[in-house]
Amino acid sequence: MPTYKAPLRDLQFVLHEVLDSESHYQSIGAEEATPDMIDAILSEAGKFCEDVLAPLNRVGDEEGCTYNDGEVTTPTGFKEAYAQWVENGWPSLSHKEEFGGQGLPESIGAAVNEFVSEANWSWGMYPGLSHGAMNTIELHGTDEQKETYLTKLVSGEWTGTMCLTEPHCGSDLGILKSKAEPNGDGSYAITGTKIFISSGEHDMAENIVHIVLARLPGAPEGTKGISLFIVPKFLPDGTRNDVKCGSIEHKMGIHGNATCVMNFDAAKGFLIGPEHQGLKCMFTFMNFARLGTAMQGVASAELSFQGALEYAKDRLAMRSLTGPKAPEKAADPIIVHPDVRRMLLTQKAFAEGGRVMMHAASQLVDVVKYSKDEAKAKEADELLSFLTPIAKAFLTEVGTEAANHGVQVYGGHGFIAEWGMEQIVRDNRIAQLYEGTTGIQALDLLGRKVLMSQGESLKGFTKIVHKFCKANAENETLKPLVEKLAALNKEWGEITMQVGMKAMQNREEVGGAAVDYLMYSGYITLAYYWLLMAKTAQDKLDAGTDEPAFYQAKLKTATFYFDRILPRTESHKTMMLSGVDSMMALDEEHFAF
Amino acid sequence: MPTYKAPLRDLQFVLHEVLDSESHYQSIGAEEATPDMIDAILSEAGKFCEDVLAPLNRVGDEEGCTYNDGEVTTPTGFKEAYAQWVENGWPSLSHKEEFGGQGLPESIGAAVNEFVSEANWSWGMYPGLSHGAMNTIELHGTDEQKETYLTKLVSGEWTGTMCLTEPHCGSDLGILKSKAEPNGDGSYAITGTKIFISSGEHDMAENIVHIVLARLPGAPEGTKGISLFIVPKFLPDGTRNDVKCGSIEHKMGIHGNATCVMNFDAAKGFLIGPEHQGLKCMFTFMNFARLGTAMQGVASAELSFQGALEYAKDRLAMRSLTGPKAPEKAADPIIVHPDVRRMLLTQKAFAEGGRVMMHAASQLVDVVKYSKDEAKAKEADELLSFLTPIAKAFLTEVGTEAANHGVQVYGGHGFIAEWGMEQIVRDNRIAQLYEGTTGIQALDLLGRKVLMSQGESLKGFTKIVHKFCKANAENETLKPLVEKLAALNKEWGEITMQVGMKAMQNREEVGGAAVDYLMYSGYITLAYYWLLMAKTAQDKLDAGTDEPAFYQAKLKTATFYFDRILPRTESHKTMMLSGVDSMMALDEEHFAF
Repeated sequence: MPTYKAPLRDLQFVLHEVLDSESHYQSIGAEEATPDMIDAILSEAGKFCEDVLAPLNRVGDEEGCTYNDGEVTTPTGFKEAYAQWVENGWPSLSHKEEFGGQGLPESIGAAVNEFVSEANWSWGMYPGLSHGAMNTIELHGTDEQKETYLTKLVSGEWTGTMCLTEPHCGSDLGILKSKAEPNGDGSYAITGTKIFISSGEHDMAENIVHIVLARLPGAPEGTKGISLFIVPKFLPDGTRNDVKCGSIEHKMGIHGNATCVMNFDAAKGFLIGPEHQGLKCMFTFMNFARLGTAMQGVASAELSFQGALEYAKDRLAMRSLTGPKAPEKAADPIIVHPDVRRMLLTQKAFAEGGRVMMHAASQLVDVVKYSKDEAKAKEADELLSFLTPIAKAFLTEVGTEAANHGVQVYGGHGFIAEWGMEQIVRDNRIAQLYEGTTGIQALDLLGRKVLMSQGESLKGFTKIVHKFCKANAENETLKPLVEKLAALNKEWGEITMQVGMKAMQNREEVGGAAVDYLMYSGYITLAYYWLLMAKTAQDKLDAGTDEPAFYQAKLKTATFYFDRILPRTESHKTMMLSGVDSMMALDEEHFAF
Repeated sequence: MPTYKAPLRDLQFVLHEVLDSESHYQSIGAEEATPDMIDAILSEAGKFCEDVLAPLNRVGDEEGCTYNDGEVTTPTGFKEAYAQWVENGWPSLSHKEEFGGQGLPESIGAAVNEFVSEANWSWGMYPGLSHGAMNTIELHGTDEQKETYLTKLVSGEWTGTMCLTEPHCGSDLGILKSKAEPNGDGSYAITGTKIFISSGEHDMAENIVHIVLARLPGAPEGTKGISLFIVPKFLPDGTRNDVKCGSIEHKMGIHGNATCVMNFDAAKGFLIGPEHQGLKCMFTFMNFARLGTAMQGVASAELSFQGALEYAKDRLAMRSLTGPKAPEKAADPIIVHPDVRRMLLTQKAFAEGGRVMMHAASQLVDVVKYSKDEAKAKEADELLSFLTPIAKAFLTEVGTEAANHGVQVYGGHGFIAEWGMEQIVRDNRIAQLYEGTTGIQALDLLGRKVLMSQGESLKGFTKIVHKFCKANAENETLKPLVEKLAALNKEWGEITMQVGMKAMQNREEVGGAAVDYLMYSGYITLAYYWLLMAKTAQDKLDAGTDEPAFYQAKLKTATFYFDRILPRTESHKTMMLSGVDSMMALDEEHFAF
């Protein structure tokens, strides 16, 4: 089991140096969030994650959750850790003071959440789902609903869930069947079966607040006839509601989190938001939830990298091709071998690059949420809606790749449970599926965002990249990287045009190109964030620093990323431009004989 | 759980039509292996695999093996299935009649083995490891050893293992520590700990014959001081030997196979092959064992494809971008969506293309083993030694990719154990690790084979491809594919030269380029086998056939492979040619701070 160490220095670099947290918080009127205050919070959070959550990560995997007649018991230690989490006030960090929150910006919660995600993703999903429920109630709930539910969620006494998926539908919520019949007293009787409900039932909190999608009588068919309801496990008067956990899933990973089948049997529910606008209400914060999942990819890369690095320095095998590097030992540590370094540096590039992408996105969330400047908020919202499917799908895809490199560095030992490396692969695999699969994100990016906006959505980002490249075109050290990125940034627009033209002839081209387009976009986006880091590092080195090795490492890793990972765009480009015909040629019945 | 159906028609196409089994068996003097006879064997094998082995695949995963004080119990049904396997005479299929075998060529055993591998890989490893032990004894054992051990292994009454890895070394066997002290009676006392011993202990057979690597007193250090020993669990006189299973591993997958720690405590062993030549003896058949592992990649792709295809035709979600395809249903089956097709076709391309690669390699094994024409045997041996690391590493890498597509097609359900798709990912993950990791295979290919032979090893294969492309340059239907392959075939040689030149400046370049080179080579190799299939299919269509859809599907899948997968070579090319500098720049202590 790799010993988790919160990457405090790196996160400080990202937040304060690369993303200039001080100016950011000033711009949104959150001057209290000084670098010192943030560092103090992160330092505490890091300790909690290292000491309390990380040791429970394997326990959660080994024990899993236990189901018994509607009750779910979480793995040993989970409940106690949650009590401590609540006692320390973590749930309330980024929520409004009027509901008992500490009033700090969302992005600070996201920074803390990075450590939680790395230390113990399955555990983190319990407070994580609550956060989603809180956002929904805060945005769409009545004052009474906020008073009743939000305050208890903010304090952490209660937790929340999101109930969307049904046995016959997940991606396609338009066909969902759960019903809501008016009870005549303003409440509704909710009936239906929901599956894949993360944290749907457990023993960590007194009450669980379910946010449920269902149809009102006579509602229009499809996505425009879905409404949103609050359905608590215990009603405000203490009565047990008719929502029961029917079973929990046995799954590939995230064993510590209960994935529940939830049966609603005329359970009492309360409409939240307008009738038939449920899906829209969900989508308001869906982008935020997707960013949460994107973080899982970064977290997996970081955790796996830490484990692999430790092992690669320790494990001896063979001699370096250029002669022994540890002649006093029986063999050289495997970190001397180029291919082991390729794997480690790939993990590192995804973890550290993904970290910047995530926290840059969190700052955009802040601007959308808190900025008084409407134009700025709108711009941030558009940029965020462009970046979200990339972050969600690309970072979780490369997160799984990174986790697999971690297994590979360990050789056969990587396959053995006790080393903890294979768990990361299993845990992260869900991230490519839930909150919209990679394919769904890719359609969202290319179809709904880029093409539907006639490319404007893409331009919002490429302009930023262009400006950055132009400003640094004469920087001698960065030049080779800047030139590569500038060329790709231009090509990105051109390719989008080509795909758009094809799609005008044949709509299927969008689906045929989508995933390649998303991955292509992801590599370029990550290149931009790596260059941002490289530029910051170069500035620090130029100005003089007592941490030259830290900054040099950033420059070297950036070069590695540009040399050995970024060229993946080439294949994605050729593949997506080859068109959809060879995908559609085969009749359904001729796939196999 | 996907219902496994042995891909009989496809295997017949590969063996008889693409690879012309009839001429092949005539050329090695195995005229008795007629297509009819082979079909009869495959049909029986298919039934056994579908009816007996496939239903035990999930059982094996769920129950795993149980360890109790040195004894290992295999999952419910494994033992009975093995008894039936033995009763039906399957173990003896491709072994010499003088040892009780049926005298059929190795490649027929490999064909049967494909079905076993697909139906239940974990179970198949018990007879699979025996096969390795048999080959070793047949090649290197004395007549007495053959009489004592081989006959019992051929009958299936006993099983075998290979004991190489130790806790501190796997890839680097040069540093292994197990000792063999002469007992004075011609036998040796073997002492040491071996780990990761597949099928090391179990309840399926009366006796287990371990083939063990250990050092004689005063042996030279490194790989040149290792000898090979037969160490049976029960000695020929019935005495229990001092080799005990100390524990079994808890691992990511292949739960149905016991991965054992084996403790040799002055266990009685018998030298096999010359002193200090143990590693060489092992390497003689290591190539064969690696092909066995390569088959796991193909098997995973096939099994996962079968499951995903079934689901994609059944599951409804959203409408086709070009309008409803199943307007009578609530939504279209997901197979209408291009991205789902991309995943299915990728699985199909790897499964069916990999199948040709594997059985073509098996024919080479036959030629090496049985041909009376020495020049032909030598040529086949060289080609085989070139293809083996590609088959082993490339097919297992893409096998994992295919298995992951299978999970992805199922959406959230893919993550749930009962659907059986995630098991394939977990089971196949070991294939990239054991029998030499992908990195080790890549070094073998680029370093030991291609560069050490001054490119001759590569030329042996590219000449064949060149000849094929030339012969089909004017084929109107195949032309676009032939041209692509011909160009890549040429580029392959050029790139090899460039990497070779770089390596003369800096030996690390070999390690830096190796995995990209291997994957690059794999995609081109698979393209050749796909073109071979396309050519066969085209000929059949031209000649008139009552299975036009079957042959059309081959042509369409070939086109998909060339359009949507083969371009991956582009990125691998750029990455490997970018050189090793960015990999080596970071000091060991500066990977993290």
